[in-house]
Amino acid sequence: MSTVLRSLLLLLSLAAASFAAQAQPTPATWIWYPGDFEIWLSNEVQARRVERDAFAPPFWRMDSAYPSVIFTKKTNTTAPEELVIDAEGRYNVTIDGTYVQLGLPKVQLPAGGHTIAIQVFNQKGLPALRVQGTTVCTDSSWTVATTNNTPFNIPPNSAPIQAGAWNFNRADTPPSAFRLPTEPKAPVKTERVGTATLVDFGQETFGYVRLKNLTGQGRVTLIYGESEDEARAPDRAETLDRFPVAATAAADFTTPDSRAFRYVLVQPEGNVRFDEVSMLFEALPNPRRGAFRSSDETINKIWDVSARTLELNSREFYFDGIKRDRWVWSGDANQSYLMNYYLAFDQATVQRTMWALRGKDPVEQHINTILDYSFYWFVSIYDYYLFTGDKETVQRMYPRMKTLMDFVLARRNANGMVEGLPGDWVFIDWPPEPMPKDGELSAEQLLFARSLEAMALCAEVVGDLRSANYKVMATDLRNKAMAAFWDPAQQALVHHRKDGKQVPLVTRYSNMFAMMFGYLTPAQIDSVKTGVILNDKVMRITTPYMNFYELEAMCQIGQFDYVTKQLREYWGGMLKEGATSFWEFYDPKEQGAARYAMYGRPFAKSLAHAWGASPLYLLGRYYLGVRPTAPGYSEYDVVPNLGGLEWMEGKVPTPAGEIAVNVTATQIKVTTVGGTGRLKFRSATAPASAAGAITRTGDQAYELTLQAGREYVVNYQAVK
Amino acid sequence: MSTVLRSLLLLLSLAAASFAAQAQPTPATWIWYPGDFEIWLSNEVQARRVERDAFAPPFWRMDSAYPSVIFTKKTNTTAPEELVIDAEGRYNVTIDGTYVQLGLPKVQLPAGGHTIAIQVFNQKGLPALRVQGTTVCTDSSWTVATTNNTPFNIPPNSAPIQAGAWNFNRADTPPSAFRLPTEPKAPVKTERVGTATLVDFGQETFGYVRLKNLTGQGRVTLIYGESEDEARAPDRAETLDRFPVAATAAADFTTPDSRAFRYVLVQPEGNVRFDEVSMLFEALPNPRRGAFRSSDETINKIWDVSARTLELNSREFYFDGIKRDRWVWSGDANQSYLMNYYLAFDQATVQRTMWALRGKDPVEQHINTILDYSFYWFVSIYDYYLFTGDKETVQRMYPRMKTLMDFVLARRNANGMVEGLPGDWVFIDWPPEPMPKDGELSAEQLLFARSLEAMALCAEVVGDLRSANYKVMATDLRNKAMAAFWDPAQQALVHHRKDGKQVPLVTRYSNMFAMMFGYLTPAQIDSVKTGVILNDKVMRITTPYMNFYELEAMCQIGQFDYVTKQLREYWGGMLKEGATSFWEFYDPKEQGAARYAMYGRPFAKSLAHAWGASPLYLLGRYYLGVRPTAPGYSEYDVVPNLGGLEWMEGKVPTPAGEIAVNVTATQIKVTTVGGTGRLKFRSATAPASAAGAITRTGDQAYELTLQAGREYVVNYQAVK
Repeated sequence: MSTVLRSLLLLLSLAAASFAAQAQPTPATWIWYPGDFEIWLSNEVQARRVERDAFAPPFWRMDSAYPSVIFTKKTNTTAPEELVIDAEGRYNVTIDGTYVQLGLPKVQLPAGGHTIAIQVFNQKGLPALRVQGTTVCTDSSWTVATTNNTPFNIPPNSAPIQAGAWNFNRADTPPSAFRLPTEPKAPVKTERVGTATLVDFGQETFGYVRLKNLTGQGRVTLIYGESEDEARAPDRAETLDRFPVAATAAADFTTPDSRAFRYVLVQPEGNVRFDEVSMLFEALPNPRRGAFRSSDETINKIWDVSARTLELNSREFYFDGIKRDRWVWSGDANQSYLMNYYLAFDQATVQRTMWALRGKDPVEQHINTILDYSFYWFVSIYDYYLFTGDKETVQRMYPRMKTLMDFVLARRNANGMVEGLPGDWVFIDWPPEPMPKDGELSAEQLLFARSLEAMALCAEVVGDLRSANYKVMATDLRNKAMAAFWDPAQQALVHHRKDGKQVPLVTRYSNMFAMMFGYLTPAQIDSVKTGVILNDKVMRITTPYMNFYELEAMCQIGQFDYVTKQLREYWGGMLKEGATSFWEFYDPKEQGAARYAMYGRPFAKSLAHAWGASPLYLLGRYYLGVRPTAPGYSEYDVVPNLGGLEWMEGKVPTPAGEIAVNVTATQIKVTTVGGTGRLKFRSATAPASAAGAITRTGDQAYELTLQAGREYVVNYQAVK
Repeated sequence: MSTVLRSLLLLLSLAAASFAAQAQPTPATWIWYPGDFEIWLSNEVQARRVERDAFAPPFWRMDSAYPSVIFTKKTNTTAPEELVIDAEGRYNVTIDGTYVQLGLPKVQLPAGGHTIAIQVFNQKGLPALRVQGTTVCTDSSWTVATTNNTPFNIPPNSAPIQAGAWNFNRADTPPSAFRLPTEPKAPVKTERVGTATLVDFGQETFGYVRLKNLTGQGRVTLIYGESEDEARAPDRAETLDRFPVAATAAADFTTPDSRAFRYVLVQPEGNVRFDEVSMLFEALPNPRRGAFRSSDETINKIWDVSARTLELNSREFYFDGIKRDRWVWSGDANQSYLMNYYLAFDQATVQRTMWALRGKDPVEQHINTILDYSFYWFVSIYDYYLFTGDKETVQRMYPRMKTLMDFVLARRNANGMVEGLPGDWVFIDWPPEPMPKDGELSAEQLLFARSLEAMALCAEVVGDLRSANYKVMATDLRNKAMAAFWDPAQQALVHHRKDGKQVPLVTRYSNMFAMMFGYLTPAQIDSVKTGVILNDKVMRITTPYMNFYELEAMCQIGQFDYVTKQLREYWGGMLKEGATSFWEFYDPKEQGAARYAMYGRPFAKSLAHAWGASPLYLLGRYYLGVRPTAPGYSEYDVVPNLGGLEWMEGKVPTPAGEIAVNVTATQIKVTTVGGTGRLKFRSATAPASAAGAITRTGDQAYELTLQAGREYVVNYQAVK
């Protein structure tokens, strides 16, 4: 070889090295079979429930991740790349069908078009993969397959399944290591109670208790209390932890399991000693994007405490409540999603929760075993699409929507309606008086019809031709149900039918749903409004869970005074009781210790229950009045209503940023971000705006089109 | 309290203590959801396959254990007991529905009637439980439930599900710690090959290689060879292991994964050194209960090597072969079961294999994805019952028989027949010439009919009224298939139908099956015998797999000379090639290196393949002639046939012990154990026996009833 050629080669190799050093590696992220991380994590998380110190996992189906998953990527690179592989599980690598084994975990990928496939097997947890090359890196563009899927359970011509991914980007942060971040917090008050120490963290909180310089021989017992009464009741508190102590040298101790509490009673036994009690607050990093302030300080406080309540329950998944169940319930989650769209607009947690709830195919049970909870799951996916415009997630979820709907459809009775079958829990609500749940419940049929509508819409989103079928089924069922349950004598929907005959009982549920879903004629709306919703003789709703829908229906029929009063009395009542987060249930008549009792146990009531946070949704959607009318806020309405407040201002998050609204009796200010909005308002006088042309749409009714990224100021006169 | 009373109480308490000390605790054993240990273990074990050093798990469905299992026992003890609990997973304990938590893992069970329920959650492996009390101990009488089972997928009035168990009796030997025992073995020869060491263990073996005093810096590569050629071909051997070495002090090294080999080439790199190479032989403890000796030393050697071959493949499950697949295949396993009934009579390994093959409900795939392999699974369960009389196992397995049969029934075509659908592998055999597999294959329909017969019989065993339905379906299908495929012109069953029309091709498969299953009329038997089985123009069978059935059919039609010749030539041929275990495939025409090639790879042929061990079955069932005719050998036949041998003697295991048979041309000796047998033989002269009365049943045909636990000596004259 000549010296010249040698020099040239040296230069070329240096250039290549320099190029390699300069090329910014594309970020790699851990990937998995879609839904499997969520299923694995939800098993872990939901199994953290305790009843006192007894371990209490869910009573419904628990799925497992596929043990063996094949991750595939078609590559086409201009230069060879070195791929560094990390996997949770044993794995093999093929390039163009040939095993590559020597030198693992590094693989040399030649330039040009190739197919790389990596099979990961792991039955100790979740098979997961991270590949870091220069341009070839794992992300959700990789496709996945499992040997459990054979052609006959994959519809023909179906798109390849895209890998699941989130934000586990570093090689040393695999999905199995996932933990929510924590932050140290000190108590606001510490006192001695006998030989024990009682600490108060000042508000409802969640995390791990820390004991500084724990030492001695014996045992330490932690009694957790959402109320002081509970922490002072070692024999009746809902949650407690006992730890043996055998320490020769003092060392800081942190509890291994997170718990919900405001108060903790720390009771040492033997010669156990410790210096001070603090905690690690554990929370999802979830900035508040929504905001609300008004002339009413109570309402403002309600919004703040609602935000805290939802945030405490927004964790690995949307929990029902942080103290007791710590479980993922579809009906509860559906409301949390809606509240979230007015607070954090956190899409990832909605996605995780939807996957976890749905579980794997084939379907063998209703979600949470509850008939109505399967229906809320369908509706929530369409809601998600409407708020976020995230078509990709709908596409990924759609196959499991279809199989769950197949399950529901296969279980219809001869009338094409659903009723509780063995193994089904027909829930609807916890009513204050006994309520029949047998036969064909009108509320269940309406939720079913609404689910079919959601199926039709989502089928359309993903381009499934069955959309038309779902639409026909939805219309048929809706018409059939409205005919079957509408009682002309009472001018309302009856609660149920037995043996094909109407039972005259009227309850609020189906009447509320029919109103919200737009299933009523104008005449029916009037009669339902007066005869049911505003009729005290119809069994009242006492759970904040159904309160959510009732107050929504009230807003829809313009009963803002009622809603504002409810906010002040019901939620304001809890604040007066010292609530720092909202409760599972509240009855103003209950006083003292009775306030904390439920399910026959003295402290079973959850004092930080997600469904207690509904003011977030009501104030954002109906007071500020901001709501999407086309996917992802590409179109939206702003229909502000002061609801008796003197003024209000706030922000509503959208994919493009926050829409700001500021309303007094004489001025409406709206700052827009993306999409096209319609400001709809009523004015006693002719309104005026410097920007845009106001259209009169009816008696005292006006509309102004809102362009993206602008500020509108409308002077008007609120109609009393 | 008076002194007298105090003394009395003291005495009583001492008596109680003394009683407690004397009471022998009932043995406790680890329990689990039935089938789940087997599924978990089969995932672990089948994922040990490598292709060279690349990890190669199965390509079919892999199931998972239920993550959350509730174990329940109704107790009724005369005295209180302390229960000590060990669990794999987190758990809770309730007695009569109330949590017991304090003091775990010890639980105080009061005397009297109680229900103890323990829920175990584990998604890292198998939820398993061991409870040790005085009389209350976990065993398979405990019942299990999972939250995945809801009433609508449990048939009404179905019996509670009994826990799965095996022999994990000690608290410190939980199921997850399961490993087969090992035993050190030294090589018979060690030689230097360049810088490497080549060792020969003298025969095909399986286990872990050990390197004594391994030290140095670098790497050591182990090339495994079932043949010496393979071990000497580092670049082409099917299995190899590479280990980095960075040892400052010499230490013994044992490979982490077990491998199949006779030869191992140990190639050090860098300055790596070691003293000697040995191995840990890993095997299921599985005493030989069957035996066979004869006047023909080649046949004796064939029996011995068959026994070794089956034993090497009888492991956690019955493997196809130990080197390459190490997988559990239903068609292969079905033959191993039958061989096992004539060697170890190991019921536990048959049970484990049946569970592992079947996997979980709901069924989404054929077993191993192969249509015919689902059918062999049904047949094998009835075989198991016939040989063992173990009704309990049939009862435990029956629900999964039903769901697999539902899957098959749902996939029939318009003619009520099965054919390969997308995702199905239609296997039958690897024929020496291309063979059509589309349309309705006659062999598949006969296996299907046989499976329906097995369903009917098992349904009867467990008292399921559907037995009658299965019987009707079996008869219908059998009649329909015999009519559809019998070609009057060729006087044989054709291979298949397409579009409802016979294709004239005749193959051996369905004709053999029809003969073995008793589906042929006497006239058809004659024509199939001459026109198919003994007709060289019909495509020959070249795999030992189908050879098994062909030779069985030959025995059934009395072609013992042919079978003996085949044993000597085919199996004797392998012995001449130096086989120490029998091969996946043997073609006497292949010489030299070509003998080891298969699937287009030079050493892919398995040299220790279970289906090569069929002489065990043929010699036991058709030469010694011992076979059950009622479950568990409560009734059986002994129909000895020397097949051209001068004499033979042997033992056939049954649940009650071994039946010994010793046959010459002039004397038959049978030593019986349990049940009632019928010795059937032919004699040229009038036979005589000191015990029992010989009945003449036809021309030169005699029968002697065999009572349990006796020795019979019959003097006769063998018919040539």
